[in-house]
Amino acid sequence: MSPPVVAVPAAAADGLDAACRWLDGMNAEVRTDARVVPLESLAGWHCDAGAGVIEHASGRFFRVEGLRVEYPGHEVPTWDQPIINQWDVGVLGVLARELDGRVELLVQAKPEPGNCNGVQISPTVQATRSNYTQVHGGRPVPYLRHFTEAPPGAVLADVLQSEHGSWFLRKYNRNMVVRVHGDVEVLPGFRWLPIEVLHGLLAVDDLVNMDTRTVLSCLPSGPAGRTSVHSLQDVLSWITEVRSRREISSATLPLNELSGWERRGGRIRHVTGRYFEVIGVEVRAAGREVARWSQPMFAARGTGLVALLLTRVEGVPHVLLQLRREPGLAGGAELAPTVQCTPALYEDAPELRRPPFLDDVLAADATAIRFDTTLSDEGGRFYHTRSRHVIVETERQVEHPDFRWVAAHQLDQLLWHSGYLNVQARSLVACLRSLEPALRAVGDR
Amino acid sequence: MSPPVVAVPAAAADGLDAACRWLDGMNAEVRTDARVVPLESLAGWHCDAGAGVIEHASGRFFRVEGLRVEYPGHEVPTWDQPIINQWDVGVLGVLARELDGRVELLVQAKPEPGNCNGVQISPTVQATRSNYTQVHGGRPVPYLRHFTEAPPGAVLADVLQSEHGSWFLRKYNRNMVVRVHGDVEVLPGFRWLPIEVLHGLLAVDDLVNMDTRTVLSCLPSGPAGRTSVHSLQDVLSWITEVRSRREISSATLPLNELSGWERRGGRIRHVTGRYFEVIGVEVRAAGREVARWSQPMFAARGTGLVALLLTRVEGVPHVLLQLRREPGLAGGAELAPTVQCTPALYEDAPELRRPPFLDDVLAADATAIRFDTTLSDEGGRFYHTRSRHVIVETERQVEHPDFRWVAAHQLDQLLWHSGYLNVQARSLVACLRSLEPALRAVGDR
Repeated sequence: MSPPVVAVPAAAADGLDAACRWLDGMNAEVRTDARVVPLESLAGWHCDAGAGVIEHASGRFFRVEGLRVEYPGHEVPTWDQPIINQWDVGVLGVLARELDGRVELLVQAKPEPGNCNGVQISPTVQATRSNYTQVHGGRPVPYLRHFTEAPPGAVLADVLQSEHGSWFLRKYNRNMVVRVHGDVEVLPGFRWLPIEVLHGLLAVDDLVNMDTRTVLSCLPSGPAGRTSVHSLQDVLSWITEVRSRREISSATLPLNELSGWERRGGRIRHVTGRYFEVIGVEVRAAGREVARWSQPMFAARGTGLVALLLTRVEGVPHVLLQLRREPGLAGGAELAPTVQCTPALYEDAPELRRPPFLDDVLAADATAIRFDTTLSDEGGRFYHTRSRHVIVETERQVEHPDFRWVAAHQLDQLLWHSGYLNVQARSLVACLRSLEPALRAVGDR
Repeated sequence: MSPPVVAVPAAAADGLDAACRWLDGMNAEVRTDARVVPLESLAGWHCDAGAGVIEHASGRFFRVEGLRVEYPGHEVPTWDQPIINQWDVGVLGVLARELDGRVELLVQAKPEPGNCNGVQISPTVQATRSNYTQVHGGRPVPYLRHFTEAPPGAVLADVLQSEHGSWFLRKYNRNMVVRVHGDVEVLPGFRWLPIEVLHGLLAVDDLVNMDTRTVLSCLPSGPAGRTSVHSLQDVLSWITEVRSRREISSATLPLNELSGWERRGGRIRHVTGRYFEVIGVEVRAAGREVARWSQPMFAARGTGLVALLLTRVEGVPHVLLQLRREPGLAGGAELAPTVQCTPALYEDAPELRRPPFLDDVLAADATAIRFDTTLSDEGGRFYHTRSRHVIVETERQVEHPDFRWVAAHQLDQLLWHSGYLNVQARSLVACLRSLEPALRAVGDR
């Protein structure tokens, strides 16, 4: 793997080289092969063609259910879809340390069955609660006690944040950053990376995984200018107003009764071939551990696009966010990127109205594109599912009734709390911070 | 009505007298009679003895459903109960103005069928969304446009907050305070009250209604000392940790299948006679408007107790809060008062373990009791349902694993956001601020 061609502080350049060599070595050492198989043949899972729910024989892990969504006034006012119901709250935890004034994070090179490549950079800990409380037995999760037994004052971030609201039903993960002092043993597959190096690696396609990106977004960044287009109270008031409308509602229903979806060729697919499919995967992991298992996965049709318009007001970076209602979000609406869609849908389905600002992003001048990397969605549930992450700088501070310019320092305030930014917005916030030295510092709030 | 015997600023004493005279006048003018009738006889409601759900024939207003709660590890690990499902989000809005440096709030003297007395002090606006969007016709809600069309910068508070998590299923109200400049017509039944007067009136039993108390709690208070026993990050981390355990879950089931509950004498009651009853009420309102309607209501058995232990750390007031899981809370756990229970339950049911700190409150020395007033729960849904509100000052800064001392200025930060403090805690925060001049100032955050 070649180091990315990005502007990084000189001190980080060597680190980038070293990190790329480490990842090459890890790819040679560990390997996860995932083979797509018919849902009917998934060992251990109840998923006959007539199944109303796909679930594991043990009742563990997660279930795929059917959902009927009502969204009056929306372009598509009602639709059916499969959705993942995973009631367990996971911990996504990153250990941080300061070394000679530099912040370093302990990351793991981890393969996942859904990855389109080999290993990706993962948090120190990425575990579900039933996993780490070992109710089902199994080996202890490395480094977990640093998170579950963090001393007062050591916690830099600890917040429940939503996962994909279109594919998960009310799923939340606990995003944690804990500061450690003194020595921590570095286990095989783990490595301390300076935060500048991690920021540099974000510019490599499919390398820093989604869980790492969301934790990075929750890390407090340094204080920026106090200027903002809207006061934080006015941003919060906008969120409250939209949420109080309760415009989206949903109810579960059996998978085999979903309108517009069919079970064909061992998968569940939309009759138009659009959106996503539910597929079966047989996994064979080799390396330090050998394991085999089967599981259903979601596979998106087409690469997604998540994009931010970025502008500066009196030098303070602002991004344009929308409030997006997604059926799986418990609060009903969260702040989302300027653009969040699958662009191919608007070529294949011209009856759909193009989302606002999509063309501003797709037609942006190369000099205005500050970030453009395709990154993977969570490889434990999503198969070869990727989104192009784009940040476009503009001087056109356009206003739109359904969008607001939010200052970077306001994002920091919002990310201290649960449920304000959706996972796509958080992923882009991590990318944004990689661009903005002023936003990089790690400090207490 | 006599003005309360409380220490108020001299300027507020006259205001208290005047407010009491106004309320006496309002009680002579408007009147709401509520007569308890059998559920079977409620006009317009489907509630035969065999009904699985009690609902209005029009599908409007709210429904009473059955709920089965699972709470493993709790003293009572599973129970059934009726619960109110009201999907509509209400607006509880108070207009504020500054006059000669004094903050005044526009309140309404409003009767409600559940009130044990006559009128109580209510917010400027107390309306459900379907009410104020007039989807069902009806007259416009006075003052509503000040809230729905508040200009930027005028909003002092705007946040969705939970209602009773034991009696409402995921019900949220939008708590708003909006500042107005210039003249606003004062309609009959409304009055500007200086905030000191409103604080003084909190010391009168059953006078300042629950909706007013929750809005008052969301009003930003002045900056207090920065000292705190725990950092805000550590308080948030505690909340995140408890919420991520997902220890409480529930599912609806038909009312006539609830274990431990019976339909008898036209009501739904627990077989032990404890907890609460679902009753029918026929309402006749007379005054400026004449109206008659019928509705089901919840009637608590016994007076509740909600209490805060208060201490000072380097002069900064701190209160002792617990994280309480309630079946109707969407987030599963919110900060609750030091004590929140029905004390009579522990006399009648000695098999129940007495809640922590209950005896510290019940046996508190009179000189330590800073606040002690019995206040009504929401009179639109709860019949003669009241809680004694107590604040006890202590020098014993006891630690308990399930409780935290939280500084008053931290409450202010938390109340800026949805879902951190339950309605009982918010009600007590309003009472606390009435005691603490340093907490009274209204400013921007």
